[in-house]
Amino acid sequence: MRVHVVTPITTHGFTKAAHFASIARSDTEVGHSELDVGPASIESEFDEAIALPDTIAKILEAERGGADAVVIDCMGDPGMGAGREVTSIPVLGPAHTSMHVAALLAHSFSVVTVLDSVIPMLEDLATKYGLDGKLASVRSVDIPVLELEDEGRMMDALEEESIKAIEEDGAHAIVFGCTGMRGCADALRERLEARGYEGIPVIDPVVTAFKIAEALVDLGLAPSSRTYARPRDKATPGYDLAFERATA
Amino acid sequence: MRVHVVTPITTHGFTKAAHFASIARSDTEVGHSELDVGPASIESEFDEAIALPDTIAKILEAERGGADAVVIDCMGDPGMGAGREVTSIPVLGPAHTSMHVAALLAHSFSVVTVLDSVIPMLEDLATKYGLDGKLASVRSVDIPVLELEDEGRMMDALEEESIKAIEEDGAHAIVFGCTGMRGCADALRERLEARGYEGIPVIDPVVTAFKIAEALVDLGLAPSSRTYARPRDKATPGYDLAFERATA
Amino acid sequence: MRVHVVTPITTHGFTKAAHFASIARSDTEVGHSELDVGPASIESEFDEAIALPDTIAKILEAERGGADAVVIDCMGDPGMGAGREVTSIPVLGPAHTSMHVAALLAHSFSVVTVLDSVIPMLEDLATKYGLDGKLASVRSVDIPVLELEDEGRMMDALEEESIKAIEEDGAHAIVFGCTGMRGCADALRERLEARGYEGIPVIDPVVTAFKIAEALVDLGLAPSSRTYARPRDKATPGYDLAFERATA
Amino acid sequence: MRVHVVTPITTHGFTKAAHFASIARSDTEVGHSELDVGPASIESEFDEAIALPDTIAKILEAERGGADAVVIDCMGDPGMGAGREVTSIPVLGPAHTSMHVAALLAHSFSVVTVLDSVIPMLEDLATKYGLDGKLASVRSVDIPVLELEDEGRMMDALEEESIKAIEEDGAHAIVFGCTGMRGCADALRERLEARGYEGIPVIDPVVTAFKIAEALVDLGLAPSSRTYARPRDKATPGYDLAFERATA
Amino acid sequence: MRVHVVTPITTHGFTKAAHFASIARSDTEVGHSELDVGPASIESEFDEAIALPDTIAKILEAERGGADAVVIDCMGDPGMGAGREVTSIPVLGPAHTSMHVAALLAHSFSVVTVLDSVIPMLEDLATKYGLDGKLASVRSVDIPVLELEDEGRMMDALEEESIKAIEEDGAHAIVFGCTGMRGCADALRERLEARGYEGIPVIDPVVTAFKIAEALVDLGLAPSSRTYARPRDKATPGYDLAFERATA
Amino acid sequence: MRVHVVTPITTHGFTKAAHFASIARSDTEVGHSELDVGPASIESEFDEAIALPDTIAKILEAERGGADAVVIDCMGDPGMGAGREVTSIPVLGPAHTSMHVAALLAHSFSVVTVLDSVIPMLEDLATKYGLDGKLASVRSVDIPVLELEDEGRMMDALEEESIKAIEEDGAHAIVFGCTGMRGCADALRERLEARGYEGIPVIDPVVTAFKIAEALVDLGLAPSSRTYARPRDKATPGYDLAFERATA
Repeated sequence: MRVHVVTPITTHGFTKAAHFASIARSDTEVGHSELDVGPASIESEFDEAIALPDTIAKILEAERGGADAVVIDCMGDPGMGAGREVTSIPVLGPAHTSMHVAALLAHSFSVVTVLDSVIPMLEDLATKYGLDGKLASVRSVDIPVLELEDEGRMMDALEEESIKAIEEDGAHAIVFGCTGMRGCADALRERLEARGYEGIPVIDPVVTAFKIAEALVDLGLAPSSRTYARPRDKATPGYDLAFERATA
Repeated sequence: MRVHVVTPITTHGFTKAAHFASIARSDTEVGHSELDVGPASIESEFDEAIALPDTIAKILEAERGGADAVVIDCMGDPGMGAGREVTSIPVLGPAHTSMHVAALLAHSFSVVTVLDSVIPMLEDLATKYGLDGKLASVRSVDIPVLELEDEGRMMDALEEESIKAIEEDGAHAIVFGCTGMRGCADALRERLEARGYEGIPVIDPVVTAFKIAEALVDLGLAPSSRTYARPRDKATPGYDLAFERATA
Repeated sequence: MRVHVVTPITTHGFTKAAHFASIARSDTEVGHSELDVGPASIESEFDEAIALPDTIAKILEAERGGADAVVIDCMGDPGMGAGREVTSIPVLGPAHTSMHVAALLAHSFSVVTVLDSVIPMLEDLATKYGLDGKLASVRSVDIPVLELEDEGRMMDALEEESIKAIEEDGAHAIVFGCTGMRGCADALRERLEARGYEGIPVIDPVVTAFKIAEALVDLGLAPSSRTYARPRDKATPGYDLAFERATA
Repeated sequence: MRVHVVTPITTHGFTKAAHFASIARSDTEVGHSELDVGPASIESEFDEAIALPDTIAKILEAERGGADAVVIDCMGDPGMGAGREVTSIPVLGPAHTSMHVAALLAHSFSVVTVLDSVIPMLEDLATKYGLDGKLASVRSVDIPVLELEDEGRMMDALEEESIKAIEEDGAHAIVFGCTGMRGCADALRERLEARGYEGIPVIDPVVTAFKIAEALVDLGLAPSSRTYARPRDKATPGYDLAFERATA
Repeated sequence: MRVHVVTPITTHGFTKAAHFASIARSDTEVGHSELDVGPASIESEFDEAIALPDTIAKILEAERGGADAVVIDCMGDPGMGAGREVTSIPVLGPAHTSMHVAALLAHSFSVVTVLDSVIPMLEDLATKYGLDGKLASVRSVDIPVLELEDEGRMMDALEEESIKAIEEDGAHAIVFGCTGMRGCADALRERLEARGYEGIPVIDPVVTAFKIAEALVDLGLAPSSRTYARPRDKATPGYDLAFERATA
Repeated sequence: MRVHVVTPITTHGFTKAAHFASIARSDTEVGHSELDVGPASIESEFDEAIALPDTIAKILEAERGGADAVVIDCMGDPGMGAGREVTSIPVLGPAHTSMHVAALLAHSFSVVTVLDSVIPMLEDLATKYGLDGKLASVRSVDIPVLELEDEGRMMDALEEESIKAIEEDGAHAIVFGCTGMRGCADALRERLEARGYEGIPVIDPVVTAFKIAEALVDLGLAPSSRTYARPRDKATPGYDLAFERATA
């Protein structure tokens, strides 16, 4: 099985295929690509908008290269709908997948994200996905995406905001609100336990989407073509080469 | 006052500034632009995605050129959020505006759009805008955007679907589901009256957004910067020239 | 164009046509009337109930006098439904209109009103209008309507409650919860900016309803006769003279 | 115990205290009053508006006369909120009470009312009462209130619409949508059984409200003064005599 | 009339028929039973699960013994659905009934229960019953069911949590969240009044359900057989004797 | 990895571990158990109630036997909550899991189940799980569980109801409403394609829950202990042996 991860930003090296090696099943091959054209990071609707065309190109390229499923490595789920329209395989967004998995495990969940500016976007996604009734809150650590590498600062802030989410907002599970927090779920769980909060699921969205992708491929399930109809063929000046034959 | 209309497709001549002349106030100057890069028409999330970057560029250009408000000429409201982030003026989407105006006039409304493929997108917008409780249904005339110029066929289908919306779905008002239907509200209202359906508001979204834009400019109101924060400055390979200084 | 404002209380001079002169378009003539029979101010369902008959009479009188639209000058929107049933022109309530305009500009909004006693009524209106999902909170300044003329006290309280709405309730826009706060939007916006809250729309409901009324008249739109059917003709002892021929 | 019924219309004899004799407990005394000023029947928001002042006066009069609870005899629940504000006893609306009782007995319910024109009003009440999720539909028999006395025609129409509600809308219980249908629940239940629909609760709203009023009096429960605060004392030109001392 | 109370726990003497004597109408005979098999108290889904079979057996036994209605004496409403399926009489749950009665009296209500562990269960019930929109909060006094007999400790905690519910969560009425708090409504109401919170309904669920049961029996109403169809006859190893002929 | 399936009925052989062999990963060991005490099949709340105690016993037994996750083989998800309270591993219900997976793949889904009598139960589950907004409908094939083995009749009915769900209810995906339909997803998909309905996901709930269980075990995720607190230790007459030490 081949699962391909598209990191929809132009900052190379932010994510690596190796990050998924330990979580992938032994029979799963991990693919990975980053954008050539687009934003250095995604923290606004503007950033997301200019990430879309090349993200879709990379999703298409992944399917043409033999991928059985694609995971988009950004909590805005950029290109998930369009990517599903132009392919026949599961294209998973980490916000979509992780919110559903959180709702499978807990009565309510909070998302802890990077900046206040993305809170409305994540709340809108929860509403669109029909899960606003399970969303306790969206909180932010107030750290830009590209500064998340200062892991000590990030973990301290994640711990504080997670505890506020539990105590003040009634969260029963925590979902990371940026795929740049990847790999920190165990550390946060341990910190929460040390503070007396045991048994709180901490959900790492992109890793979760990766594992659910494997399950969907095994099940032979793909997105509905009623929801994601193949786009009609038409002129697309400025994009013709990139998207040749993506449409019906 | 200067209100600028951005038609976010690359099919030139589909909409003209002249289309807004009769509805604009005598002291309103109408601006208009179309895309250089993007889809011939918008009928899918894919089409919308590749329309976004140049739509945002045209919105920015309009503000820099002195526009007091921008109206996006497509029922998917492409670029409305991003356009609001990078400007300080009202940027209105016709779906957003017309659904709210429909809810101001009627207990429930239906949207009659072009193709089945855009129904989920319009339902998602109604949900995102918080108006799904007022949405009786979304129906389609099954005519692609670029074939709407066959006005007889379109009017016949609009009439039939509008009556089904009223009779079967309980609609108390009709909203056009594609800005390409612009200018046909009076004709549909007359047809409905001739069939015994008097007093049903028929809402022409882009024209409605244009008039609401004028009102908002007079009121000195603009989108909230809490919802639409200015994007942080960062590298955007492939777009640097187009969006120079759009971010904070 | 003639837009008529009905102030549905018997305290004369509380509102004057002159208050709308600066906001009205140059070609808009402002009409105004107050009640002969009814409450001195509206702060309860009881007050609203006894305001209704004469409010409807004044709406009818306005249409018969040539008004193209009527704006009701009270945040309870008293008589909006009945007024729409007995006329053929737009009859706008400030709560209805301003909540929709707030939702056009922001992810969420709070209403800051006069007294705790009207909070359930305003929450019920938001629910009826389908906008409870966008309502962050309703807060009160704890000042009765007829004491709002002490503008210093009112502005101080508006500032404090607005900041609580933003900080504690997540409001992205502020809507005045009493039309007696008319004219104070700029002052509140400046105070909020001085406290570090820039770009928060402050919506003055009756003025907003006035401008939206102008736009609807231009658009040729009126309330749906499916939602607001003309009342059947019947005996109405005690009211016959006032409402002669209002019904079908 | 004294339970007082206010029939909020000026058509005298439409309802009689005797109608409640068989359902009242042996220790319950039934009071009854009708309006002096107001509409002959209630079939619109206009009718309801002009019924309000005298309805409230009659509710007040009932409490002053020693009533332990008041039941309003109209499915629009006119004056329920205001009546609760000016008294200290349970004031029950039949729509409010019967919708809650329907939800106590069934997964979903439909209301079958008199005319299409009141459908939006009843849907709005269900929404305000928080029960729209249990409301399968509101249907009408298309018979004006004052023609309901033609019981054969009414029963035939009630039977047909109830079966459509069950079959097409998924109703598990039927609620009468006009208090003028009072006394016909058993007959409808028998007709439904004869058509193969056994075990469908048929709820007679005003009779149900009467019995729930008795239970609430026994329980010592009355409406919350947080929801229904006593109105502040103020001038009410044209109403002073009627409402003397109703306010705080 | 015979109303039977089933206390679905094996701790005998926790509830007695005598507890209902003062509230029952003079013509109502009170029946009572407790479990032989099941948990000592109900504070989890596990406790509830093992209470179900014998609770249903006791409901069946009550109907066979001539009861006109059954009230289940636990806020989890265990066996309400199954009990309705296997009988033809009203089987009332105290959570179901009291939440509806709270919504009849107030704009919003809070439930104050025993332990944090049952909060999700009560929130789920409010959602299932369609009343989540009226639920301000569920709070707990942090006292296990079988320690509620320390009435001083319980009353102090009830008072504190009720005031928090009013002040912080916006509750307009209080519902006891455990039937073990039975009989304390007057005391809590007095304590709240002494703290300045007048006119707040305090609802005692099992007593309320008892009185609503009497009203429903008088009205001849029973649960819908569309919602609660008679179970099909089938083998039930381990339960055959207990449930003989309960199914169709 | 060891995933254990509990078939919560006493009809032995209805489900076999072998049914999961083809879908399990090569490194997954499948366990299976059936009830000793309980109903022959589950088609009502009554059936479900008497299935609960032994289902929980079998879940406990599975964890004690080394299972890493448990899947309950019934669309009512009986014992899911209680099973999660008494164990520390993922306990998955097929309704819960498959509705979330359906929402991951499609804008809307319908459940096609066995009998009308279980429709309210499945609608209630969708509401409890927060997914009612994505549920297009629940339909039934009108075949009792134990007659599903007549596969021709079942497939014909599944095909017809699925097409009605798509055409009349707007379903974009189909979920089997009984785990007894296990193994028929491919056949239904082929039949739908033959009728012109391509690209409609057909979701086999128990198989889907099995695969999601594997993914959750890999991710190290388990249900939240805030939602599913360990039950307090107490007397449970009649059950002591079975549940020894299940509680805290």
